[in-house]
Formats: sequence, C-alpha cells, structure tokens
Amino acid sequence: MTDIPSQLALIKRGADELLIEAELIEKLKSGRPLRVKAGFDPTAPDLHLGHTVLINKLRHFQDLGHHVMFLIGDFTGMIGDPTGKNATRPPLSREQILQNAETYREQVFKILDPEKTEVCFNSTWFEPIGAAGMIKLAALHTVARMLERDDFSKRYANGQPIAIHEFLYPLCQGYDSVAMKADVELGGTDQKFNLLVGRELQKHYGQSPQCVLMMPLLEGLDGVNKMSKSLGNYVGIAEPPKEIFGKLMSVSDDLMWRYFDLLSFRGNEEIANLKRDVGDGRNPRDVKVLLAQEIVTRFHSRGAADAALADFEARFQKGALPDEMPELSVPAAPIAQVLKQAGLVASTSEAMRMIDGGGVRINSEKLTDKGLVLNAGETVVLQVGKRKFARVSLS
Amino acid sequence: MTDIPSQLALIKRGADELLIEAELIEKLKSGRPLRVKAGFDPTAPDLHLGHTVLINKLRHFQDLGHHVMFLIGDFTGMIGDPTGKNATRPPLSREQILQNAETYREQVFKILDPEKTEVCFNSTWFEPIGAAGMIKLAALHTVARMLERDDFSKRYANGQPIAIHEFLYPLCQGYDSVAMKADVELGGTDQKFNLLVGRELQKHYGQSPQCVLMMPLLEGLDGVNKMSKSLGNYVGIAEPPKEIFGKLMSVSDDLMWRYFDLLSFRGNEEIANLKRDVGDGRNPRDVKVLLAQEIVTRFHSRGAADAALADFEARFQKGALPDEMPELSVPAAPIAQVLKQAGLVASTSEAMRMIDGGGVRINSEKLTDKGLVLNAGETVVLQVGKRKFARVSLS
Repeated sequence: MTDIPSQLALIKRGADELLIEAELIEKLKSGRPLRVKAGFDPTAPDLHLGHTVLINKLRHFQDLGHHVMFLIGDFTGMIGDPTGKNATRPPLSREQILQNAETYREQVFKILDPEKTEVCFNSTWFEPIGAAGMIKLAALHTVARMLERDDFSKRYANGQPIAIHEFLYPLCQGYDSVAMKADVELGGTDQKFNLLVGRELQKHYGQSPQCVLMMPLLEGLDGVNKMSKSLGNYVGIAEPPKEIFGKLMSVSDDLMWRYFDLLSFRGNEEIANLKRDVGDGRNPRDVKVLLAQEIVTRFHSRGAADAALADFEARFQKGALPDEMPELSVPAAPIAQVLKQAGLVASTSEAMRMIDGGGVRINSEKLTDKGLVLNAGETVVLQVGKRKFARVSLS
Repeated sequence: MTDIPSQLALIKRGADELLIEAELIEKLKSGRPLRVKAGFDPTAPDLHLGHTVLINKLRHFQDLGHHVMFLIGDFTGMIGDPTGKNATRPPLSREQILQNAETYREQVFKILDPEKTEVCFNSTWFEPIGAAGMIKLAALHTVARMLERDDFSKRYANGQPIAIHEFLYPLCQGYDSVAMKADVELGGTDQKFNLLVGRELQKHYGQSPQCVLMMPLLEGLDGVNKMSKSLGNYVGIAEPPKEIFGKLMSVSDDLMWRYFDLLSFRGNEEIANLKRDVGDGRNPRDVKVLLAQEIVTRFHSRGAADAALADFEARFQKGALPDEMPELSVPAAPIAQVLKQAGLVASTSEAMRMIDGGGVRINSEKLTDKGLVLNAGETVVLQVGKRKFARVSLS
C-alpha cells in the first residue's frame, strides 16, 4: 500500500470536506482495507460525468487497495415519494430496480473494478427488520435534533409542511452504514447531516463511526452551473466518442484542471507535472487532449480515443482553430440570432447565407441545419468563414 | 334495536365527550351494527374497576346490538419502550403477550359477551406492512401537526427530547382504526389527539371517519383521586366477594351515583327511578347494596353476592352502623394515631386499650392488629365502642 500522506492526498483531492481527518488517519494506520460506502438512487441510471465524481472517488480508494461498496437504495426506491407530490420519484417495482441496477453496473464498471466492488441493496436489511424495526430505529433520534437540519429548520420556520417519513430517511441512510459496517461514506456536501447521522447510529450500535468525505457538484461545460442534463452543459458517459472528445476539448483551461482533479485517475504528481509544463509554455490544448483521451478510453476504448483525436486533429488542421478566441455569453436562441449576437455576422440573413454556403462551423463541424436552436447552458465554438471564431456560452 | 335517542342516551352516559354526535346519529340511523373499537396495552392485565369503564361502555354498545372489537396492542407491546427509559414498558415476548391476552379474556369476558366480541391483535396488520409500510404511514402526517399535540408542544417548548418513534405511535393507533374499519373508537380524554388521527387516516383510506367517545378516569373510593392501585383507593375485580362488597358499601352517596353511571348495566330509566326513590326518602344504603350486588355478581356470582350481602347485614346488625356519620380526612398513619386524629379516642394509648378490649371495628369487622397502618387513598369506616363512628379518608 501507498504511504499514508500520499493516500490522504489522493483521497482529499477535489473533496469539499473530510470529517474527521484524524480518525481517517487512524483507520488508514490499521493497514486493513477500509470499507468505503457510497449510496445511489436506483432511478435514472443514465449517467453523465457529474454523476461520476463520487464513483471516481471510490475508484481512488479502490486503487489504494480499499474495499468499495456500491449501495443501491432499492428499499426507498420501491417506496418512491409516498405523498405522490414529487413526480420525479415514482415508486419503482422490484423488476424496474433490478433493470436499473443492471444498467448501473454496466456504466459503473467502466470506472470501478467489478472484481473488487461489492454491490449492495439496502432492502437486504430493511425488509427483515419490519415495521417494528423501523419504530426502533426512529427511537434513536429526537425531533429537535432532526429539525436542526438546515432545510428542515427553514421549512418548519416558514410553515411549509414536513411529512414525518422525511425524518425516517436520514435514519435509513445512517442504518445502511451500520449494516454495511462502513469505515468511510462518500456523499455530496448537501448530504452532510445525513452522513453524520450514520456516525451516530454506528456509535449506538457499538461500531467505530465512519469518516465522511463530501464531494462537490461538478461544474458543467460552461464552468459556472453544475453539470445537468436539463441545463445542456453535460457530457453523457454513453455519448459517442467524438461527442465526448469534442465537448471536453471545448472547456476553458481553468475548468480543465478542475476536471483533472475530479475526473482523471492520473496521480497527483502527474497532474502537478502537467501544470508545471503548461506554466513553462506547453500548449494547454495538448494537455486537454490527454484528459479527453482518458475519458473516452474509459467509456469506450483506447482505439475510439485515438480515432476521436485523429478526427479532431484533422478538423483542427482544416478548421485551424486558434489557440485564443473571444469567449462570449449570449441568450439561448436559434443559430442565426446567436451568430449575429456573437458579432460573427452582421445580420440573421447574412447568417442564413453563410450557412447555405457551407461557411459556418459549430465545434469544428460544418453546420447544415439552419433551424438549429441552441439551448441555455450549452457552450459551443462557432466559426464563420476562415478567420472568425468565438466560444459562446448560451444563457 | 332500541330507538336512536335512547341508544344515544345510553352511549353518552358518563362520557366526557363525543365527537361528532351528528355523525354518530347518521351511523345509528343506518340500522347496521356499528363496529366499535377500544384498544388495550397487553401489559399488567390485573384489572380494577377503573379499567373497566371503557369495557363497560363496550358492553353498552353490545347490549344495543353493535359489534364490539377488543384490540390488544401486541405490536407495540413487543417493542416496549425502545429508548429503555420507561421501566414500566419493557418489550414483551409473543408468549408473554399471549399469556396476558388470555388473562385479559378471562377478566373481560366477565363483562362482555364472548360470543359477540371480536378480539383483535394489531400485529396482524403491522407485521405484513413491513418497514416500507411504516414509512408510507409516516408520510400521511406532518411534523408540525404532530407538534400541536399538547404534551409534544410542551416538551418541545421546554427543550425536553421527543424521540421520533413517538410520532409514529399515534399513526399506528390511527391505522388500527383503518384496518378494523372502526365506526366508533372509545378512549380516555387524554387520548383525544390520537383518536382524531384515526379519523384522518380513515378519510385518507376512503373510509367514513370514526366517531370518538371519550370516557373519564374513574374516581377511587375516596371520591377524589383517580382509582389506582398505588393510591390504594381501588377495587380489584379479582378480589374476594366480601372485599368488593364492603369497599363499595363504603363509598359516599354522591360517588355511588357516579359508579352507577360508569359501572352498572342498569338502564338509564332504572337509575333515574332509584334516584327518585332516594329523593323520596329511600335509604341510600339500600341502593348501594344493589350496586355492590351487581358488581359482585359480575365478577363472582349471584350466590357470592347474596352471601356477601348476608355477611354484611349480619355485621351491620351487630355493628349498628348509623345512616349518617362524620366524614373526615386525616393523614395516613398507624391505626392508633388515625383513631386519635379522627377524634374517636383521646390518645393513642386509649386507642391501644380499646383495640385490646375488642372495642374497635374497621369496616364493621373487629380490629385485632394494633400495628395496622392505613395508607393514603384508603377510605374506611371506623367504630369505637357502640356509638362512635367516622368515615375516614387517609391522605
């Protein structure tokens, strides 16, 4: 195993918060593989890179020799939103969940080593405890402490209803940690309260409390908003190689380093060396290529990554994308208006003529669809003729 | 079936509150037997008359032709107090509960007709719903509404902890009503909130909401405090006939009428006639005899009641208890001090001499034990010599 300071540096890379570092060091000192947990909803297993941040951190642990547990929350998934108010959380059947879990596996095992990953379903321990077990679990926490949670305290103060089962979910998540004997749980920063409930329940059950590692939400291609399908600023892991490659090549140099931290499995030292190279004058685009190739290789293959690079370079040679270009933000609109507002054409009718004449490129590809509408959140490189370029973020 | 006004008069006799009377009238108008529910803890099935108030009201419904459901809360009984703080609520095993239920049956079927009584166990519906069912149930109520319950709001305001499972118990009680399709639920006034939760849950499940009939706590023999074993002012239903008879004969004339309302199965009209008789000069002691005989007959037999009366009258002739005697309250103490403080002797040494000489009677029986200690809550008739009497309540 790697020495403890190096382990810690990799574990903490890109993380927002680690509780409690001294405890984690003690656990690492034991030398045994730590039991590392992350929980996922069994809905919508159509992942984009934003979803992979947690999974990548699991991979870091796996690379360090620890035991990774991928928890599928099928128990609560089958319940859905019992009030029926939240249309995005319908109750799922066992069949749907197993199907989603299968899709999850296919996607997740592009990141994690299937041989070294334990996939858990929390119905395994929640079904046997029954209604009585749920009551006993509820007895382990008080109403007042639950109302200290940020969103609960705000809703209570504002007179917005909190259904009682919402108090049970943090306890369920905490009990997962007990059942799984987790040493470390990963989660988003918004999960802090729930992650800490796990610590308390473990203490109650005589276990050493888990350390909690909170990961940030990944910024989307625009570098501003969180990556999200509805904002259009995402890279889906099932997208074709050329798409993934092109989208990653479109991000700013700053965002590229953030993506290295959160999406790459290159070691800390290697990333530090790349940064130094760029500081010494290496073209950041070459480094971006390394990132794009790594990601394409992960979700497709080395061959696909090479092909995507070759295609990109061919177009780059032809299109002669400059190293520097204006970066603009304009409102989402049909392409002709975007071109006009970006100052690449004088009018929408000129835009139409240029498209008809084959003189407009979007992300280096010739644009043929005059009706194309660009949506808020997208970032594209637009080119008119040979010399006019702009990187445009739609707002 | 009896006409609706008469049914209503019997149902409301002795009750503290009925919600909602108009709805009950509608239900009665349907002519079908109503499903009448009362729930009991499966602990301490050693009943005294105070416990029988609810059961007697069930009997009233039974006499009117309705369907009586005696619910044993075995599901929560097996959980006990999950925090372990309440020593009076240890978790019970299924065997203990079945044993207690058997004792309950033996006692309760002295009041209810076993042929017409459905005994229910709520584990029947809580075990199948599982942990997921409990979560769905919890989703039917909000934290804010639960905190409106008197004791919860006080504890929350005072910073006293409320464990989350305490929010689940009212929902469990309410769900019992759903599972049992209750038309009416009986309970103590302290149960009002929980009884009303049943109404809400029934509406949610598309049932017509139950009517709620709240019964008072029975006053003990002292006529002041609630009947309770720890206060000593009780009549246990398993006590020997003479004890029950004697204790009931010791109550005040006012309390006698209260006991008629809550403990007798005589009709309203018959009780009204007895009251009129006493108003017209009949000795209230004769009416008290009717009550005492009815209760002894219920828990023993008609023969035992006759024997108890004969015994009482024999002692009464000998002891010549007057119709009127001073009623006093003195602090609990050894008998000699009580006699002194009641003004029946001049000193404790006189008291001792009188006891030695066989001149002191307690509830018409000769006192021989000079060391007797009377406890707070007890009420006794003390007699010294032939002419000194007092009805003494110990405080």
